[in-house]
Amino acid sequence: MMNKSETKLVALDDLAVGNRYLSREFPLDTAQIKDFARNFDPQPFHLDEFAAAQSFFGGLAASGWHTAAITMRLMVESVPFSEGLIGAGVEISWPCPTRPGDVLRTESTIVGIVPSKSRPGRGIVTLQTDTFNQDGEQVQKLVSKLLAFRRGAK
Amino acid sequence: MMNKSETKLVALDDLAVGNRYLSREFPLDTAQIKDFARNFDPQPFHLDEFAAAQSFFGGLAASGWHTAAITMRLMVESVPFSEGLIGAGVEISWPCPTRPGDVLRTESTIVGIVPSKSRPGRGIVTLQTDTFNQDGEQVQKLVSKLLAFRRGAK
Repeated sequence: MMNKSETKLVALDDLAVGNRYLSREFPLDTAQIKDFARNFDPQPFHLDEFAAAQSFFGGLAASGWHTAAITMRLMVESVPFSEGLIGAGVEISWPCPTRPGDVLRTESTIVGIVPSKSRPGRGIVTLQTDTFNQDGEQVQKLVSKLLAFRRGAK
Repeated sequence: MMNKSETKLVALDDLAVGNRYLSREFPLDTAQIKDFARNFDPQPFHLDEFAAAQSFFGGLAASGWHTAAITMRLMVESVPFSEGLIGAGVEISWPCPTRPGDVLRTESTIVGIVPSKSRPGRGIVTLQTDTFNQDGEQVQKLVSKLLAFRRGAK
């Protein structure tokens, strides 16, 4: 995998609606799911196979926030904005659960660019990031409003 | 803090718009911020004080996803839905950064309840969760669509 410093970084000037960025694959196991849940989402269906089997999820499922955090990791590695990924806000939905053994990957597409009226060096880029498992099922839809900067502005 | 099993759990039948749930306080330090960032959001402004000082953030800041994950932890502890907190989707904004040394807390308010037409035992509860630091500044606004169940339904 390329280091960020070796990747060609792009400024607001270089971005266009339709630009698309694909991530590597991220394998997820039971230990990671339980570890994240213990820290941030300690609910039985994220922590215990037996309780999960009897729950709405019908088996151990990752916290949606874990799926979101992994998605961010994959975005940081694959979306080469020059000043980084700085989110003002997001919308998320989780169409189906992430499970132990899943291998996740993301597809990020620029769906909108709005230059700032008050701050000429800045703009808001709307990026849609779909997260898929190894079977091509979409486990998350994320739409992010990201702050981006023209070359030389910050 | 009460254990969840000692808390009075409430089903969809018991919920009403305007119900409000307050969390405990959650202290956040530099080590936690860098640890989360290394795993899920490895950008310089979340990992390195010097790089952060020169960035948009003007100093080390927690990943917004870390703020979101801590918020979930505090929601799990403070919002006593009988079948747990199962999110279908959320909207998030981050009005100001979370910093090392911040002590976070959440206020969750039910702003909408829509019974399912197709599944009579279920409904969608819209919960707004505001996350504040020790100075009363709002660091995150979260609006969650949560699946809730009537007593005896699942």
